[in-house]
Amino acid sequence: MAVGKETFPFMHPVRGFRLGTASAGIKKPGRKDLVIMAFDDSASVAANFTRNAFCAAPVQVAKQHIAGQQGEQQLRYLVTNTGNANAGTGQRGLDDAHRVCAALAQIAGCDSTQILPYSTGVIGELLPVEKILDALPAALENCHESGWVDAGVGIMTTDTRPKGASLQVDIDGVTVTITGIAKGAGMIKPNMATMLGYVATDAQVDPDLLQTLLTVAVNRSFNRITIDGDTSTNDALTLVATGASGAVIDEASREKFQYALDSVCRELAQAIIRDGEGATKFVTVVVNGGRDTDECLKVAYAVAESPLVKTALYACDPNWGRILAAIGRAGLADLDVNQVSLKLNEVLIAEQGGRAASYTEAAGQQVMDQEEITIHIELGRGEASETLWTSDLSHEYVTINAEYRT
Amino acid sequence: MAVGKETFPFMHPVRGFRLGTASAGIKKPGRKDLVIMAFDDSASVAANFTRNAFCAAPVQVAKQHIAGQQGEQQLRYLVTNTGNANAGTGQRGLDDAHRVCAALAQIAGCDSTQILPYSTGVIGELLPVEKILDALPAALENCHESGWVDAGVGIMTTDTRPKGASLQVDIDGVTVTITGIAKGAGMIKPNMATMLGYVATDAQVDPDLLQTLLTVAVNRSFNRITIDGDTSTNDALTLVATGASGAVIDEASREKFQYALDSVCRELAQAIIRDGEGATKFVTVVVNGGRDTDECLKVAYAVAESPLVKTALYACDPNWGRILAAIGRAGLADLDVNQVSLKLNEVLIAEQGGRAASYTEAAGQQVMDQEEITIHIELGRGEASETLWTSDLSHEYVTINAEYRT
Repeated sequence: MAVGKETFPFMHPVRGFRLGTASAGIKKPGRKDLVIMAFDDSASVAANFTRNAFCAAPVQVAKQHIAGQQGEQQLRYLVTNTGNANAGTGQRGLDDAHRVCAALAQIAGCDSTQILPYSTGVIGELLPVEKILDALPAALENCHESGWVDAGVGIMTTDTRPKGASLQVDIDGVTVTITGIAKGAGMIKPNMATMLGYVATDAQVDPDLLQTLLTVAVNRSFNRITIDGDTSTNDALTLVATGASGAVIDEASREKFQYALDSVCRELAQAIIRDGEGATKFVTVVVNGGRDTDECLKVAYAVAESPLVKTALYACDPNWGRILAAIGRAGLADLDVNQVSLKLNEVLIAEQGGRAASYTEAAGQQVMDQEEITIHIELGRGEASETLWTSDLSHEYVTINAEYRT
Repeated sequence: MAVGKETFPFMHPVRGFRLGTASAGIKKPGRKDLVIMAFDDSASVAANFTRNAFCAAPVQVAKQHIAGQQGEQQLRYLVTNTGNANAGTGQRGLDDAHRVCAALAQIAGCDSTQILPYSTGVIGELLPVEKILDALPAALENCHESGWVDAGVGIMTTDTRPKGASLQVDIDGVTVTITGIAKGAGMIKPNMATMLGYVATDAQVDPDLLQTLLTVAVNRSFNRITIDGDTSTNDALTLVATGASGAVIDEASREKFQYALDSVCRELAQAIIRDGEGATKFVTVVVNGGRDTDECLKVAYAVAESPLVKTALYACDPNWGRILAAIGRAGLADLDVNQVSLKLNEVLIAEQGGRAASYTEAAGQQVMDQEEITIHIELGRGEASETLWTSDLSHEYVTINAEYRT
């Protein structure tokens, strides 16, 4: 299941950024499950990783290698396998991640610290390193600037469709491209980034600025989605700026670039929700009138992660009492429920602590029957607002997650 | 579905505490859905209510009336309807709760402030007051000390079985009885109390001490269970001490009485989990070695409420990586995963950040196939411990909550 028609945008190639895909047969023979992304050592790289304390071995290695990029050894490659997360694997997992980097370095003619490794799939099983090493040459040879679609498919696990976003923006008369792919459908409540996302641009951006731009974009996109509240061990979003367009992002052009980057990241993050495990609804939760960001997010997540709200969405049931109950348990001090109002799309449901006089069950039903729904919550106690995106909780979600390993 | 065989203990009557049940036909004609509990005005009453800001109208009224019990007007009756929660109903809901109290007061010959009202069922619909008023005389007439089982059935909603606990303890040579009933199967993460619980004792206890004893017991029972993380709008646990046994609870006998009260409350709370919506597993989560209670609870709830952990439990799948991932995202500062270990029942699963050398999938499978499972988590950074109880997430949970109103 997934929400909305499957569409994949035209993926503008990013000059200086090449993608190659091959089959290592990690989980299923013949499945394209290994992706290499290559760029010159003049590129800048920024990344945000999961804050899960049990972060995966490749995340730990990637963090080390990215921290070294200011020195002699600039980054050159990203290498990703699906089918195995290499998480919860202790020291052996770290050794395995290093082995993959070392092998790619040898055939590519660079240092292993110039490579960032990524893994996604089942947690707690050892990485089948030999299978990956065997497939590295094919993936490397296969690298080309039009490899985005194949790579988007290559990084999928329980995803039912690839997720891409791409746009072009004019910076000082030069056309700059921003193109990205992402994967993820379950264990989705990113806390820094989604499971795996890769965005590339041919703009030229200083690494520190690139990291700042990325963190801002992530907090407006990947850090505002939740499918099941489960933050993954492997979340990583990586942004590479090749500089091949010659356009430089500086204080003057920064805002325009940020806006474009936000747009690409938001589109990718929303695509993850649309393809959420078992999703039949795409739900936007808007909280207005909070005292600060923190309390808006508390309310938004309480609603978005409530199993009772999510099953009501699945059932197309305008059981709005469950939304009020979730708001009420979100832990806001001194919440005056008489100031709270609730709308589903444009239909006023509740105000002053109870059902709105104008509300009819028929009007509520009409909204709930739609595939895309916005829950508007007004807290009436401040100026802060937050928006996040989520999906519903269906039989299919239970089926997928009760059968994932079998 | 429910975990374990349906059993209902022998319910020792509590001298001076009478229960009457009748059918008001609120949701289904003929269903016993109205319960009155009666006691003399020499009784002490303590209660803990939901902390949900959208607390129901009867909760608000009950809080007012219980606050007045130190004065001239001692409490005399508890009146409970199922099928309608009278929550999210604004001022009209408050008026309706007052009308029910006033009507009972008139036929019982007391003041309406001597009555505590309770409601449970669907949120956001107006209380059918006339139906309740019509059934009050029958329920009142029906009150007797052996009415516990009928009352246990009368307060059920999506519960599949009544929940009771009863024991006797010797206090200074006098046999003191503690007997209680509870209901609740969904929207269960009590924050002060479960949806509805009633415990009575014939001990004589000063009201302030009674409240203290109840709060301690609740924090060891109802406040340590979660089915779906959704704190209800109507949670209320009420403890009545009739004093009819003549045994006085004082500093000398306090500890013994607390122990017995804890036991009754824990049994009722665990019965709610066993009857959790769609539950096929009864799961105990034990967290040891935390720095303080708060961080133990953070980890325990992250595991107990993770949809991915819960679906793995449902599938009998020893997918322990999901448990590590939940521990890792619980938000503990500086968690050293190398100090964390994980056991399922007595099987060591993970230590030092990865799979234990001794672990075999067969051993994990054997534990997961059982109906009752204990997840032991050792954090290795302090002396604090916490225990809570939860259930799994099944297809049946989705079915129940997607169809509840239809």
